[in-house]
Amino acid sequence: MAASPKRILILGGGFGGVYTARLLEKMLAPAEASISLVNRENYWVYQPLLPEVISASIGIMDTVSPIRRLCPRTRLIMREVEGIDLKNRVVNVSPGFRPRATQIPYDYLVIALGSVTNFYGMPGMMENAMPFRTLADALRLRNRVIHALEEADFEADPELRRKLLTFVVGGGGFSGVEVAAELNDFVRAVARNYPHIPKAEIRCVLVHSGKRILPEMVENLALFAQRLLMKRGVEIRLNDRLVAATSEKAVLKSGVEVPTRTIISTVPSVIPQVLQDLDCAQEKGRLIASPYLELKGYEGEVWVLGDCASIKTPSGSPSPPTAQHARREATTVATNIRTAIRGGERATFAFEGLGKLGSLGHRSAVADMFGLRISGFPAWFLLRTIYLMKMPGWNRKLLIAIDWFVALLFPPELVQLNIATASGIAEQHFESGDVIFSQGDLGDSVYVIQEGECEILRDHDGEQKQLAILRNGDYFGEMAVLSGTGRNATVKALTPMRVLLIPKADFNKLRSNVPAFGAVFAELARQRAEPGQDNAMK
Amino acid sequence: MAASPKRILILGGGFGGVYTARLLEKMLAPAEASISLVNRENYWVYQPLLPEVISASIGIMDTVSPIRRLCPRTRLIMREVEGIDLKNRVVNVSPGFRPRATQIPYDYLVIALGSVTNFYGMPGMMENAMPFRTLADALRLRNRVIHALEEADFEADPELRRKLLTFVVGGGGFSGVEVAAELNDFVRAVARNYPHIPKAEIRCVLVHSGKRILPEMVENLALFAQRLLMKRGVEIRLNDRLVAATSEKAVLKSGVEVPTRTIISTVPSVIPQVLQDLDCAQEKGRLIASPYLELKGYEGEVWVLGDCASIKTPSGSPSPPTAQHARREATTVATNIRTAIRGGERATFAFEGLGKLGSLGHRSAVADMFGLRISGFPAWFLLRTIYLMKMPGWNRKLLIAIDWFVALLFPPELVQLNIATASGIAEQHFESGDVIFSQGDLGDSVYVIQEGECEILRDHDGEQKQLAILRNGDYFGEMAVLSGTGRNATVKALTPMRVLLIPKADFNKLRSNVPAFGAVFAELARQRAEPGQDNAMK
Repeated sequence: MAASPKRILILGGGFGGVYTARLLEKMLAPAEASISLVNRENYWVYQPLLPEVISASIGIMDTVSPIRRLCPRTRLIMREVEGIDLKNRVVNVSPGFRPRATQIPYDYLVIALGSVTNFYGMPGMMENAMPFRTLADALRLRNRVIHALEEADFEADPELRRKLLTFVVGGGGFSGVEVAAELNDFVRAVARNYPHIPKAEIRCVLVHSGKRILPEMVENLALFAQRLLMKRGVEIRLNDRLVAATSEKAVLKSGVEVPTRTIISTVPSVIPQVLQDLDCAQEKGRLIASPYLELKGYEGEVWVLGDCASIKTPSGSPSPPTAQHARREATTVATNIRTAIRGGERATFAFEGLGKLGSLGHRSAVADMFGLRISGFPAWFLLRTIYLMKMPGWNRKLLIAIDWFVALLFPPELVQLNIATASGIAEQHFESGDVIFSQGDLGDSVYVIQEGECEILRDHDGEQKQLAILRNGDYFGEMAVLSGTGRNATVKALTPMRVLLIPKADFNKLRSNVPAFGAVFAELARQRAEPGQDNAMK
Repeated sequence: MAASPKRILILGGGFGGVYTARLLEKMLAPAEASISLVNRENYWVYQPLLPEVISASIGIMDTVSPIRRLCPRTRLIMREVEGIDLKNRVVNVSPGFRPRATQIPYDYLVIALGSVTNFYGMPGMMENAMPFRTLADALRLRNRVIHALEEADFEADPELRRKLLTFVVGGGGFSGVEVAAELNDFVRAVARNYPHIPKAEIRCVLVHSGKRILPEMVENLALFAQRLLMKRGVEIRLNDRLVAATSEKAVLKSGVEVPTRTIISTVPSVIPQVLQDLDCAQEKGRLIASPYLELKGYEGEVWVLGDCASIKTPSGSPSPPTAQHARREATTVATNIRTAIRGGERATFAFEGLGKLGSLGHRSAVADMFGLRISGFPAWFLLRTIYLMKMPGWNRKLLIAIDWFVALLFPPELVQLNIATASGIAEQHFESGDVIFSQGDLGDSVYVIQEGECEILRDHDGEQKQLAILRNGDYFGEMAVLSGTGRNATVKALTPMRVLLIPKADFNKLRSNVPAFGAVFAELARQRAEPGQDNAMK
């Protein structure tokens, strides 16, 4: 036993990764194995409680737990995984405070990187739809909702106010239903603090591709949930789904357009790019795990579990991407790593699930567990009890219990907790017919057309006159930014468009520091100021 | 009394603005006055508790209170004040979701916009020093500290590790002392969760320009605080101050340089630009208030209070920028607005202060109140009692009391709550001799020199050879970004430098969308790839 400890490297700090590390700390002595875990954040998220962050009914910090406290013997590396070299047994991670490449070698590898939201083929969704997976996503959504309410309270234009008061959630699985329920409850509860918001204009729309929500649940519980949500004011659109988005609306497959400023999408998900790049067999876009949860071709060396893995139980049913399954998968992986080090029998994964639970907000839920199918308050009470039991650490159990108790007494909080700064150069999508900016608006950005066409319109005695049509590679909007005055024309998309937005501050920094950049726009401004051009495009 | 209600507009949602609004709601009937308040955030911050956000010993949301709940009859406008036109009685505010100018007319105006941190004449401070005024500042500092600890735990280079473990606080007044005390306690408490951090390398440095800290306090209490902080491991540098900063160090007036990645500055403060732009008499950079807290030249129409006002009591002593003074100033302002509407006698401001309190973290404080001068645990207990009594709202009182109780039982939290996204094009300052990047680093940004000179160095068999000198308007660092490989040379500042940093992602977006921009760098890369140039500057 004089050999140096085996290097176990775990990628991902979700249920799969963290529970594998916890079990390995118990199963193996420090002399046998050193354990490292790479995760982008230094905390583990108790995913089932994430929707409660929207209303802040529990303390923001209480939905998460520091990985260092959960797995004290594991070396935590707070970086992103950028590449996995299975042949040479080494993982590349992102740089830290200094731009240096870092490689981490391993003897045994555990892949538990979960899934990410993917908007491929859905124009404008990347720019305008918010995913709901991480704590940061939940906080951003909360901030956005509060900002929309603040603006709606002050906004004089009824059309914009209605957009600000409309919230669209895509996906009617557990995650989408919980988000829609929580969001709807929160908006309607705090609206009473906004005296200028017409309460009847608040809309929460849940869009689901199936013929009923909660496909994971038996039909009568799903229908109970559906009726309850509708009674509380959630509009449910079945047999439909989000296909595109702009900053002003959600576009559905049916052709329906919902004017809105806030879109949340809980579907679809794919494995992270770094796993897609692996030369491994995949099934339904996930890495195939053997019955021992090993990666094919790397038996006894690489294991895969959680949302990024395609796992089947002996009965042939796929293991769903839930916390209870990830925890049992972690037991199998940890056991088999011990076997790889000490020898012995490998364990197969054979967990069929204990049941299903879904919160519907406001003291209601649906549960299908231990042969019981219950709904309403008893299900909600059961759900909270189970969540509390499963939460690791006594201080968090205590804090959450207190939070829940206090939340019963007081209305939800409406503090907007914004710590993000300006976002810089970005892309944006417009649908045909969209107004990109209107004559009289302030000049806040310069636009570069990447794809599509738009027209420049100017009001003349109440009539709109077309001044020009712009195409791929053309710039517009620079004149109002250069002059610091309002837009002197309206720009309207003639086709679907992709544009690059350069914010005023960035534009000015580049203009004064990169002369060639400034020259392009100075020349453009000169051309457009010529009489024939009629001062076209501010 | 058939006249329409008078429009009262309050600028600023700190102690001064919010307490004025609360009092006006009580003093005036809705038919007499409509009250509006403009603030960048929708919450009011209980400033004295802000340092506790660093260790999260109280819930983040519990240090703040929604303005809508504190002043239910006041119309809250969550925008920035961009201009005040005293002649025409109108205030310009920043645009909301749409880039439109918004003007708010008023009959009576209350200016309570506080102060901002100003780094004028201190090179590199703007880019590298963090202010500590708002909740966002406190959260950013917490995140930065945790990020530094995570990286220090993983960092192999001992020099960088020491920089990551050094924290410099500028300013030894109440604010600086409380931040230094809280930061020092927090870092040393959570360090036990970072097994690879050498505890002896942790440094918290407090820099103060006077000959003792806490100039607001009597000498023996200040000396008590000084001894206590030093005992807990805070290094105190007196008769010195921050004069410049780079991303790698703090530069002090004495010439001492402290290698660090984290600088917090609590000084100096000035009134916001929008108030500096007013054509009004100022004293020590603040707007002069009359004994009735009116703005000179606008008596009976504009009032000024809080940190942005220069206020003298009848005894001639200046009213300091503290919460207790702002609250009493609000009483005077509200009373005088009522007088302006209803007629009667104006009130003068005559509050001389109840006492002074400063937290030293970890169950200690100093207090000079009611003729008592106490320190240590009794002062700390008094301070918490007073803070709790002064906190508006029963739910917050309850939550904070619970938080404080729970914090006595459990170690501080080490979750890094990062919701900010990438920051975009930025400026940076380098001191003469600083390495901007090193050969072998990853290419993460392109640099444009705004001011100063640097040399390009390449390792040749262990020796550094100078390849070129670059000056104002020159670009560098583009080759590693274009090729996706490491830097093939080291760049070192020869003089103090200002550079523009264009992050890789922004650089690539601009290059592919603005051909003239791309052409500049393509031409540069071609020139530098010529044999005579020896592949100079990646």
